[in-house]
Amino acid sequence: MNTSADEIYMARALALAGEARFWATPNPHVGCVLVHEGKVIGEGFTQPAGGNHAEIEALEHATADPSGATAYVTLEPCAHTGRTGPCADALIDAGLTRVVVAVGDPYPAVDGRGIDRLRAAGIEVSVGVLAVQASDLMAGFLMRMQRGWGRVRLKMAASLDGRTAMASGESQWITGVEARSDVQRLRAESCAIVTGIGTVLADDCALTVRSESLSLDEDARRRAVVKPPLRVVLDSAGRTPGDARITSTGAPTLIITAPDVDAPDYAGEVEVASNATGHDGRLDLSAVLMQLGARGINEVLLEVGPTLAAAFLKAGLVDEVVLYQAPKLLGDTARPLAALSIDRLAEAVALEYQDVTPVGNDLRITARVIS
Amino acid sequence: MNTSADEIYMARALALAGEARFWATPNPHVGCVLVHEGKVIGEGFTQPAGGNHAEIEALEHATADPSGATAYVTLEPCAHTGRTGPCADALIDAGLTRVVVAVGDPYPAVDGRGIDRLRAAGIEVSVGVLAVQASDLMAGFLMRMQRGWGRVRLKMAASLDGRTAMASGESQWITGVEARSDVQRLRAESCAIVTGIGTVLADDCALTVRSESLSLDEDARRRAVVKPPLRVVLDSAGRTPGDARITSTGAPTLIITAPDVDAPDYAGEVEVASNATGHDGRLDLSAVLMQLGARGINEVLLEVGPTLAAAFLKAGLVDEVVLYQAPKLLGDTARPLAALSIDRLAEAVALEYQDVTPVGNDLRITARVIS
Repeated sequence: MNTSADEIYMARALALAGEARFWATPNPHVGCVLVHEGKVIGEGFTQPAGGNHAEIEALEHATADPSGATAYVTLEPCAHTGRTGPCADALIDAGLTRVVVAVGDPYPAVDGRGIDRLRAAGIEVSVGVLAVQASDLMAGFLMRMQRGWGRVRLKMAASLDGRTAMASGESQWITGVEARSDVQRLRAESCAIVTGIGTVLADDCALTVRSESLSLDEDARRRAVVKPPLRVVLDSAGRTPGDARITSTGAPTLIITAPDVDAPDYAGEVEVASNATGHDGRLDLSAVLMQLGARGINEVLLEVGPTLAAAFLKAGLVDEVVLYQAPKLLGDTARPLAALSIDRLAEAVALEYQDVTPVGNDLRITARVIS
Repeated sequence: MNTSADEIYMARALALAGEARFWATPNPHVGCVLVHEGKVIGEGFTQPAGGNHAEIEALEHATADPSGATAYVTLEPCAHTGRTGPCADALIDAGLTRVVVAVGDPYPAVDGRGIDRLRAAGIEVSVGVLAVQASDLMAGFLMRMQRGWGRVRLKMAASLDGRTAMASGESQWITGVEARSDVQRLRAESCAIVTGIGTVLADDCALTVRSESLSLDEDARRRAVVKPPLRVVLDSAGRTPGDARITSTGAPTLIITAPDVDAPDYAGEVEVASNATGHDGRLDLSAVLMQLGARGINEVLLEVGPTLAAAFLKAGLVDEVVLYQAPKLLGDTARPLAALSIDRLAEAVALEYQDVTPVGNDLRITARVIS
């Protein structure tokens, strides 16, 4: 086995998987490369739900007979018949002799059965090539399989001194146009964008993906708008106005209220559902995430104010913070990033820097929550 | 002329100049390389005030006859007799045939005369090689020559949400040991560390350089403690206690009060001087910087609280912000970075990111003030 060649082909499969990140939901975004005698003879990535999986795409687009070839797949091929037939069978039928897998699929109907089926058919299977990279790429899906809800990212935009707006609410614009464009990409990569009723009432935000603002090539831009993220309003008292922009057409909306709350009628693709509340009358955020997980939401993006941000953080429900940091100082009277209201340094939310990337004149700081 | 070779030797001269940054004050830190027929035959950098300039060091340490050689000097050789004789004459006497200079010396007694003198002696002089890098390295000296006071850097340590301490004042430690060690280096590179009486009374800070905390090699560490930075307390009412740690021995201290203020007697190297105040009774910060400039302070490091930080920023007197940013969120009740008290986004202090470097688990963010 030549590990180095395996990694090169798997890296290509991961790149293909990335192409599907905008539209695969609720499925994981998977990439597949077919290699025969050192030549790539087929490539594919997950099509929108109901369409082909990556393996079938690669087989259908193969430029030569795949018999005797090796398939590089970022996720274990499925072994069950869902909206499509089992990919493991398709690989067996095509005469593949080796399959290289980055990570196993924890989905209960698969969970090792795909690999077992391939091996039972006499196919050599290698698992774990570029597993860390693949796990990172599919983090939302994998987390949902393991714990019931997807990856939760808290997106924030602030000044160098951690301020999101002036006391008056003025915030247009703290970050530059490139950072705002990057937020559009982040939204497009998400399955749901969660906000609070406070933000809806204060800003009348639409939380849609503006395709013209996406810094993507034509093909990616096309895929990015196929499946607009679900807009979710945490609105325990059912106060979302009937004409709120977040209920506009073009993208689905889910308004989550406390039980037994009467919400107005909405036009557009708006659904009103209820969920449990805590003793304070606020929605149980953990239950909300489970509710979204049950709907197949892999990637949750929080675009919330300082109070709701603090509530998610204090509940330990944020996996990652994505902070667009503008090189400005707004001062002590400007609005805070997170209303944590803690007294001791030991209670601070601890993170770990993952990545810092310049975006226009701003920085995009990605940090994982570790406590 | 081979520009590429010139840049390589000048880069070496700049590295040598950097070695002198801890102790050259009030002189600029300069490096010099002597090259004869493609071989480096001598190197030197500025010695502490009263000692050799870089050119003399390189000549004295030359391993071969410098006659016919080229000298690479980061700053125009001096043409006047100060505490040492003119370096231009020494280069002429040594028989050099070419001198490459990064930047001219704006010091009034030099200001082109060094280059003129070399040329008058028949030496070929090239000016401007790696000028940007040299200007950056000697920014403090060059600024002082041009405007009367040196470079002003505001050092801060804060969380990702811009908080420097809990409401109680608890701040040990927001940043990690590596960041705190890097602050020691920053102090050692500074000629003066400025703080306010509020910080002195609240923290009883010593503001000394702890040589054992410096992440430097043995030689650099030795140079870093030769000339401890001047500790400056802005103390308009003369409230610095007689036993304050900032008046401890081992480093000089300057307490600046308003005119006609009686200060207590201090042990140690403590000087009390006065300066002008504004109509609010606070010290005129611009006058304070001029006062430090007149004392030969090239690099000013501000280690101040949020009120004094805001005062320097609002007066447009901060050149650069050095922020050690810890991956923590401390929340809205924790203390702010700068008490700017501004209402409109247009009044924000605008900066430009220069550099972001991981230091332990923290980031060191360097940003230049542009408005």
